[in-house]
Amino acid sequence: MAACVPAELGGMGVESLHDAILGINRLGRGDGSTAIATAMHVLYTWVLTRAWRAATAAGDAPQAERTASSLRQIGAGQMVQCSPQSEPGTDMLHPFVEATKVEAGWHLNGRKLFGTLSPAASHMMIICRVRDAQGSFRRAIASVASGSAGIDVKNNWDALGMRASGSHDIVFQDCFVPETALREDGPWGEWTEGSLSGQMAFNMALVAAFLGIAEAARDLAVLTVTRRRRGQNSRSVAERPAIRHLIAEIEIDLAAARAMLGRTATMADAFFSQHPAGRVPLGELHELMKDFQCTKWFVNHKAIEIVDRALTASGGAGYLNSNPLSRLYRDVRAGPFMQLFSPNEAFEYIGKITLGIDPRLSD
Amino acid sequence: MAACVPAELGGMGVESLHDAILGINRLGRGDGSTAIATAMHVLYTWVLTRAWRAATAAGDAPQAERTASSLRQIGAGQMVQCSPQSEPGTDMLHPFVEATKVEAGWHLNGRKLFGTLSPAASHMMIICRVRDAQGSFRRAIASVASGSAGIDVKNNWDALGMRASGSHDIVFQDCFVPETALREDGPWGEWTEGSLSGQMAFNMALVAAFLGIAEAARDLAVLTVTRRRRGQNSRSVAERPAIRHLIAEIEIDLAAARAMLGRTATMADAFFSQHPAGRVPLGELHELMKDFQCTKWFVNHKAIEIVDRALTASGGAGYLNSNPLSRLYRDVRAGPFMQLFSPNEAFEYIGKITLGIDPRLSD
Amino acid sequence: MAACVPAELGGMGVESLHDAILGINRLGRGDGSTAIATAMHVLYTWVLTRAWRAATAAGDAPQAERTASSLRQIGAGQMVQCSPQSEPGTDMLHPFVEATKVEAGWHLNGRKLFGTLSPAASHMMIICRVRDAQGSFRRAIASVASGSAGIDVKNNWDALGMRASGSHDIVFQDCFVPETALREDGPWGEWTEGSLSGQMAFNMALVAAFLGIAEAARDLAVLTVTRRRRGQNSRSVAERPAIRHLIAEIEIDLAAARAMLGRTATMADAFFSQHPAGRVPLGELHELMKDFQCTKWFVNHKAIEIVDRALTASGGAGYLNSNPLSRLYRDVRAGPFMQLFSPNEAFEYIGKITLGIDPRLSD
Amino acid sequence: MAACVPAELGGMGVESLHDAILGINRLGRGDGSTAIATAMHVLYTWVLTRAWRAATAAGDAPQAERTASSLRQIGAGQMVQCSPQSEPGTDMLHPFVEATKVEAGWHLNGRKLFGTLSPAASHMMIICRVRDAQGSFRRAIASVASGSAGIDVKNNWDALGMRASGSHDIVFQDCFVPETALREDGPWGEWTEGSLSGQMAFNMALVAAFLGIAEAARDLAVLTVTRRRRGQNSRSVAERPAIRHLIAEIEIDLAAARAMLGRTATMADAFFSQHPAGRVPLGELHELMKDFQCTKWFVNHKAIEIVDRALTASGGAGYLNSNPLSRLYRDVRAGPFMQLFSPNEAFEYIGKITLGIDPRLSD
Repeated sequence: MAACVPAELGGMGVESLHDAILGINRLGRGDGSTAIATAMHVLYTWVLTRAWRAATAAGDAPQAERTASSLRQIGAGQMVQCSPQSEPGTDMLHPFVEATKVEAGWHLNGRKLFGTLSPAASHMMIICRVRDAQGSFRRAIASVASGSAGIDVKNNWDALGMRASGSHDIVFQDCFVPETALREDGPWGEWTEGSLSGQMAFNMALVAAFLGIAEAARDLAVLTVTRRRRGQNSRSVAERPAIRHLIAEIEIDLAAARAMLGRTATMADAFFSQHPAGRVPLGELHELMKDFQCTKWFVNHKAIEIVDRALTASGGAGYLNSNPLSRLYRDVRAGPFMQLFSPNEAFEYIGKITLGIDPRLSD
Repeated sequence: MAACVPAELGGMGVESLHDAILGINRLGRGDGSTAIATAMHVLYTWVLTRAWRAATAAGDAPQAERTASSLRQIGAGQMVQCSPQSEPGTDMLHPFVEATKVEAGWHLNGRKLFGTLSPAASHMMIICRVRDAQGSFRRAIASVASGSAGIDVKNNWDALGMRASGSHDIVFQDCFVPETALREDGPWGEWTEGSLSGQMAFNMALVAAFLGIAEAARDLAVLTVTRRRRGQNSRSVAERPAIRHLIAEIEIDLAAARAMLGRTATMADAFFSQHPAGRVPLGELHELMKDFQCTKWFVNHKAIEIVDRALTASGGAGYLNSNPLSRLYRDVRAGPFMQLFSPNEAFEYIGKITLGIDPRLSD
Repeated sequence: MAACVPAELGGMGVESLHDAILGINRLGRGDGSTAIATAMHVLYTWVLTRAWRAATAAGDAPQAERTASSLRQIGAGQMVQCSPQSEPGTDMLHPFVEATKVEAGWHLNGRKLFGTLSPAASHMMIICRVRDAQGSFRRAIASVASGSAGIDVKNNWDALGMRASGSHDIVFQDCFVPETALREDGPWGEWTEGSLSGQMAFNMALVAAFLGIAEAARDLAVLTVTRRRRGQNSRSVAERPAIRHLIAEIEIDLAAARAMLGRTATMADAFFSQHPAGRVPLGELHELMKDFQCTKWFVNHKAIEIVDRALTASGGAGYLNSNPLSRLYRDVRAGPFMQLFSPNEAFEYIGKITLGIDPRLSD
Repeated sequence: MAACVPAELGGMGVESLHDAILGINRLGRGDGSTAIATAMHVLYTWVLTRAWRAATAAGDAPQAERTASSLRQIGAGQMVQCSPQSEPGTDMLHPFVEATKVEAGWHLNGRKLFGTLSPAASHMMIICRVRDAQGSFRRAIASVASGSAGIDVKNNWDALGMRASGSHDIVFQDCFVPETALREDGPWGEWTEGSLSGQMAFNMALVAAFLGIAEAARDLAVLTVTRRRRGQNSRSVAERPAIRHLIAEIEIDLAAARAMLGRTATMADAFFSQHPAGRVPLGELHELMKDFQCTKWFVNHKAIEIVDRALTASGGAGYLNSNPLSRLYRDVRAGPFMQLFSPNEAFEYIGKITLGIDPRLSD
């Protein structure tokens, strides 16, 4: 969990997005739920490290110390953070969860969905809205300790797959947030550098996890067709041209998915090392986001197809619960639902950026 | 269960394959497991009725009476039949389950997989092999009562989907089959009229069931996007072009799948009414089987895609177990595994028949 | 050309849409350009015959006689009609070609694109707009003889495929249309029974032509792989599993395309015989149009894929101009461009009708 | 044409495969025929440079001088080389063109197909077979000057696309090849380092050319939908969600295709710089070839889809010959035919390598 904490603050010093998501990818090969739950925390740390570096470079000592303190705790294994994003009936730019001013802080009210990692997290980062002096909404981010009064983790995650991810609903009812634990992040409903780059980092790790699931399915398929023998002469099914065709289709899609994710991560590393936190040009960030959205859609889509073909290659065997392919088939289908963006919105976003049209989400 | 029993023998008189599978399709809209389990019995009855009509027409009184007796029992609700086909390590033309001669009958030994309906069946129809006088294998069909000694229904069905279908393993150990309850059906490893037309009828019903699952998913998708509202202005998601695009894709695929299955069933009805049981030209039957295999592959494939798109249309909601779409997604994936044929073999068969090449399965 | 003229008026009496497009389909197997050019005239005749039957049934003698007169001319081979639809910069519901009132008639001005059959047509049916007393536009249909003053057939058709279809631009400049040769057809920009059912009939025939192209390509592919021999032992390429896989893919898609078009045409026949011209319920007509649009998109799309696979099956041979596959590849690509609708609009229309949303084209 | 000649021999010193094919890709954006014709020569130069470096490193002065001499001529613009590969009725490992021993050299007889660049080449490199002392065939490579007696360039290239590539048939009839201008290259019908790595280099450049065609189509599509206005209000078609969806699909496929080709080229550069010519481990080379075959199939396939979608985005305009999209559509379809491998064989090869099965082509 300390992978992305700088070495000087007690971590492993992984500051490349490419390398961070590679670790998540390897977890994904073993277990998808573990991978996406870990990603929630690890990529948050990556964001925090960028903030710390920027504050240090800018000579902003208080902010540098605040971020360093969190990173040291994470490095010491004392802090695990989750950051549930989705809410019923709205998108990520327009959170309905609201922080209202009370003495010395805020009261948080509302409901988050898909709170992956929530059972294990010591802290939660909650995107919400607050009213400014004019009564307009602004986006804000509140950090609360998991056991605080007014937080109810519903323990209700019961889904087709990703069953070990703990993605429960989380309900906030007058949950107190101290003054210093909430910071504003631009106008409600507008893209900001923070929301775009954070979302990209989180989601790139999720995509890496789903690619890992596909890689595991591919390995199982190759193993199965190599070992499985059928018929009177007990010949290996690998000798059947139809099986080889199927395996070739898997190889092609896997090579394409890996190439795309690798390319996007490398481009992101180049981009983010050129632009420290707080100084990222928003237009170029949208271009990068567009590229990532192409990658996200493609890799998630191909990961599903790869697992599907691995299931076909298994004969009926993979349909049984005793066979890990049946779990991979359920798990991998979660990929496209991960915001930002769902397939329904990704095409619209990609098309708009490509054609030079304002990418705001319609409400 | 008496749908395909002739009216004069106490049934509903559905002798059109088209109409029989239409009934299974409607069950499939409600529950896939129920539909495929019912299909096992109902289409067996359809086969039996054809045998009865042929025996009657040919003046073969003993055979006519045997088949009529079974049909009357089915009509009276006293007999439910399952017919497990798959076995580990071999294909349908080369069963390894073997009947060996004992006094007054046979001993059945071996294992069947995917014994759908087995918990509810009063009788089982078991495809097996026997040795003839020269020591060569021949295919045979044995009928046994479910509670007979030497039958062990393993109660081990635990799969990704179709969980209520009772598709347990069934193990036979020296299970006694009376002389009259086993009949030969041609050389082992060769297509016969009986195996081809029986398989086609069973499978056409299964395809209809999977189409029903897709139709249910489509209805859920339309309902969801019509009712679901999002954003500040609480607008229906049906107003989003991306959602309409998705729904249109579902409509196109569903129309194509329905058209194909309807056409094949109509052609099969024309074919089978022209050719009574026992007088079916094998070459033309392979042509019809080829057409059906095109339909089977296409409809199963499209059914999976339709459910997948319905899941996408649902947003994340369909991924939750509380939403029936998650069950439909697991159930519909069983379709392509249903023999005859798996996707790995169907393309080979279709290609061979089209190009005039001997369609024997390679061992 | 007299296929759809009633027998009593000197034609072949084909009044079933299914049968009419079957004829076009058979032409399409031979030559795509001939098929689509013929379709322009033949389906116009089908529309005219419906108008004649309706007028006769309604006792509207003048209209019955007008339509009968045209049909008799067509039956006698004295009239061939084309009806160019497309215009630059607008859609079919909003024609810019305009008829302005002059003494004893109208002056027609504007440009039509894709005037298929124009070099051979004796008459042209031109959809245009006129202003009513209030200055609002209404849709109208003008009939003009091809050689009239003010009509300039540009002889400029030079396209990727369908090269023999004569789909030239046609420019009208103060072309005189007599009073009786123009009739109004509802508000400009609104669907009417006439525009919807006419478009459907025309387009169904076009789809049948493109299916014919695909069928021709399939036959060439089968012939090629059966005859072609390669390698030292001069073995038929049909013995290669990859070739059989390819042929099987063609068979599946072709069966699906045929099934869909057959089903839609049969449904259309049932619908139109129930509802005579002038009494068609618009809502149900949109439902039928939606079904047809599913078929149009699917069949055109599959026809392209089938020809593409046939090209693959040919090895490099099909890429040479001496091989008819290269022409089929160019011709078949025209299908999706045929209005109504282009792929860009069809999904939107299908989605709207399915979800109960007003299907008006946005301007 | 001197791009891949080392700087010290008068060229531009491009020895990275990645960079060489990038140049071909840029030509492909302008004109596909020019790109593939150029590739024939440029990648041959790349192979030659590797041979020169290896001979120099090994201290093989005569071979170093022979290769250096050719490279110097190419550097000086005095030599342009084509290397036709295909023959009727056989594959690349089993050439039928044969060199038979005559005094002081050989006589070459047979026919090559698709002799791209042949009208402009000063020399031809001809893969053929010779008999060894035991009468067995061996593969050999003969170099002949284009104007030599016994060479007949048929000037018969007349194809769907790539019309400027000059891919004529070339017939050899007792064409004399001097002793020193023919060298053996291993057993006939077996993969060798030379045949595998040469084919890979050539083909990677061709794939880059086809990607360039797709990139040009994408740019035209974006330009078209941005500029094109329709309807009463003359709104840009880029405002239509269906158009944006289409553009997004293009962007996704293009990003995937670029990522894959970039990754494979980078891997190839790493591999070839680690293994000088003559010392390449064949097993690892097959692994790289498998990866490249995944890329070749995928990129060619996606390039076709991208051009197809660009055509859709153009409305009917791209179907006209005056629009460059119609040429791109014809050109891009040549990609999958380029040996090695055709789609029919690529899946088989990829499947075999993945499953550890001997990749020999079946005869």
